[in-house]
Amino acid sequence: MRSSQNGGAMGGRAAGTGGGGPSAPVDKEVDYAQYFCTYSFLYHQKDMLSDRVRMDAYFNAVFQNKHHFEGKTVLDVGTGSGILAIWSAQAGARKVYAVEATKMADHARALVKANNLDHIVEVIEGSVEDISLPEKVDVIISEWMGYFLLRESMFDSVISARDRWLKPTGVMYPSHARMWLAPIKSNIADRKRNDFDGAMADWHNFSDEIKSYYGVDMGVLTKPFAEEQEKYYIQTAMWNDLNPQQIIGTPTIVKEMDCLTASVSEIEEVRSNVTSVINMEHTRLCGFGGWFDVQFSGRKEDPAQQEIELTTAPSEQHCTHWGQQVFIMSNPINVEEGDNLNLGLLMSRSKENHRLMEIELNCEIKEASGNPKESFKKTYFIE
Amino acid sequence: MRSSQNGGAMGGRAAGTGGGGPSAPVDKEVDYAQYFCTYSFLYHQKDMLSDRVRMDAYFNAVFQNKHHFEGKTVLDVGTGSGILAIWSAQAGARKVYAVEATKMADHARALVKANNLDHIVEVIEGSVEDISLPEKVDVIISEWMGYFLLRESMFDSVISARDRWLKPTGVMYPSHARMWLAPIKSNIADRKRNDFDGAMADWHNFSDEIKSYYGVDMGVLTKPFAEEQEKYYIQTAMWNDLNPQQIIGTPTIVKEMDCLTASVSEIEEVRSNVTSVINMEHTRLCGFGGWFDVQFSGRKEDPAQQEIELTTAPSEQHCTHWGQQVFIMSNPINVEEGDNLNLGLLMSRSKENHRLMEIELNCEIKEASGNPKESFKKTYFIE
Repeated sequence: MRSSQNGGAMGGRAAGTGGGGPSAPVDKEVDYAQYFCTYSFLYHQKDMLSDRVRMDAYFNAVFQNKHHFEGKTVLDVGTGSGILAIWSAQAGARKVYAVEATKMADHARALVKANNLDHIVEVIEGSVEDISLPEKVDVIISEWMGYFLLRESMFDSVISARDRWLKPTGVMYPSHARMWLAPIKSNIADRKRNDFDGAMADWHNFSDEIKSYYGVDMGVLTKPFAEEQEKYYIQTAMWNDLNPQQIIGTPTIVKEMDCLTASVSEIEEVRSNVTSVINMEHTRLCGFGGWFDVQFSGRKEDPAQQEIELTTAPSEQHCTHWGQQVFIMSNPINVEEGDNLNLGLLMSRSKENHRLMEIELNCEIKEASGNPKESFKKTYFIE
Repeated sequence: MRSSQNGGAMGGRAAGTGGGGPSAPVDKEVDYAQYFCTYSFLYHQKDMLSDRVRMDAYFNAVFQNKHHFEGKTVLDVGTGSGILAIWSAQAGARKVYAVEATKMADHARALVKANNLDHIVEVIEGSVEDISLPEKVDVIISEWMGYFLLRESMFDSVISARDRWLKPTGVMYPSHARMWLAPIKSNIADRKRNDFDGAMADWHNFSDEIKSYYGVDMGVLTKPFAEEQEKYYIQTAMWNDLNPQQIIGTPTIVKEMDCLTASVSEIEEVRSNVTSVINMEHTRLCGFGGWFDVQFSGRKEDPAQQEIELTTAPSEQHCTHWGQQVFIMSNPINVEEGDNLNLGLLMSRSKENHRLMEIELNCEIKEASGNPKESFKKTYFIE
């Protein structure tokens, strides 16, 4: 035997199959092992702290809106290295509670102390759902966004914190969020199709060899192997840093969220029907790009002095560590300028791991004249 | 945030930190999520089934010792795709119980049926510790070996199966196992040292930037970051396909096991004191290579007709999917032919994950004359 290890063949594969059955309740220990442990590495923290788009947005949101922080109490959900808690204190907060589920809490505490803010920032190790604060807070700040906004399902924890600890007049940082989807052209589609075909050719050789050397007919496993490989190469969303010129139609908003009022039920299943119009001549629809943006706008009665936006949209200048999620089509379709794509999206959580996502995408393509052209339905996984 | 994903920066890092404290009891659900799930991919099964050294050894062990199988009952522990169970049946077994903890059991069942052996092979989905058989068995066959033999701690399950289900006259396949350690030369040591130095240089740039752009002094995290990186680049054993010419001293056996009598206590901690003699002129000790072999010898009263050995030693001709584990020294030492290495090895299980290993290695180098030359102590991790 040999289970996966650094450098092993399966090293890059997501291990998304927990022991639980359909809709099993979340096992906290499993969730820790599968999810939180990533954040206990300084290497990973450094990766996030090196994302200038992310850092500039939060930095500007805090320091250009000091009125939200001066003399106020702040809760940082998932503080990691403690950076947002430190900035909140530097911007004038009276008290900052910085909650972190992993052992990274020890490093955050050291960083706070080394920056002479331990009289303001209190680092608390624990799940935000479990901990207790001595007071309600004026601001909840958190960097909770995963791929395509909702992967990781971390906003559930922010909601829990908000409902328990935010004053009725409190402000959320960020305050709003949006998910975007756009049709794209990309040669990844062809490459992944080739990878899949190669894996299957390899399987057939393998199968022939097992039969001739070892007398066992593997044929019955060809179909499940193909399904597994298709999921891996074709159906699993890919990280990509798209160029804006790869976007071949109008980007559409598939979800808008007010962080002050959003509920778990509205994010555990996202349904959307939108239309995108192809705005490029003679091109190929190779799939879709998904990304998000968040806004720091304060609240209606207590708005930001300076509205800040953090966007992970395709950009010539700026790349984020989130990039975009790409959902490819193994058989691209020729499309023309003016073609309408009616898109039906249903995003739900994986039954085996509530932090991973499944997407059903329905697409009907109509010519500018209204004539139906083609339609298809695809299932994707964000792992 | 962004936890690791296929292709993500942390994708290759082992997530070895479960939620449990020191000596926490094994959480079965966590263990499933961290360990067993790897084996539920056909891709991974194919990888193991493509290892000709592994396959030939088991195939020959079974078919050149049919007397152990003809008319007998067999238990296959961790059957995976079912190959060993199928061979056992083809070699004449009356009944084969094939136990598999993952959903791979469904594929094994299909493979058994497609090969017309479902009247002999019964696939049982479950942990071997939990299942019950209607009878005791004549043979236990299992491919339980992990990196450096004991990684994965799967032999614990074989022991449990043996003590519950093997007849007093029963035979183990394999019957014996050995762990080997040898001094090596390798430029991996220099490369990894460079990688580590590069990571630290990168950290210092990063730290300067965070200070100048965002006003936070990261200095206090430099030491823990260096420790994390040292563990990753230097202290974590690496998979390698060593060339026999890289071995610069006599290989030594650090552990011998009789599979019929071995106990969990003798494998959960392995202590060994051995001597290796450098047998190459003017060379550099860059670290150590670790591997294993297993023998199919039957039992004393019922020996194999044809003894078969499966070795994962460095070889010009044969490479296995196990390769060798390499424990590097970031500062290689010049050694001479005839130098004696007195090696003290202590291998124990990781407190956070009982399937991963920690190794303490003490080395005293003496010249052929007996004069002490150098000594050091290192800690390694098999992740």
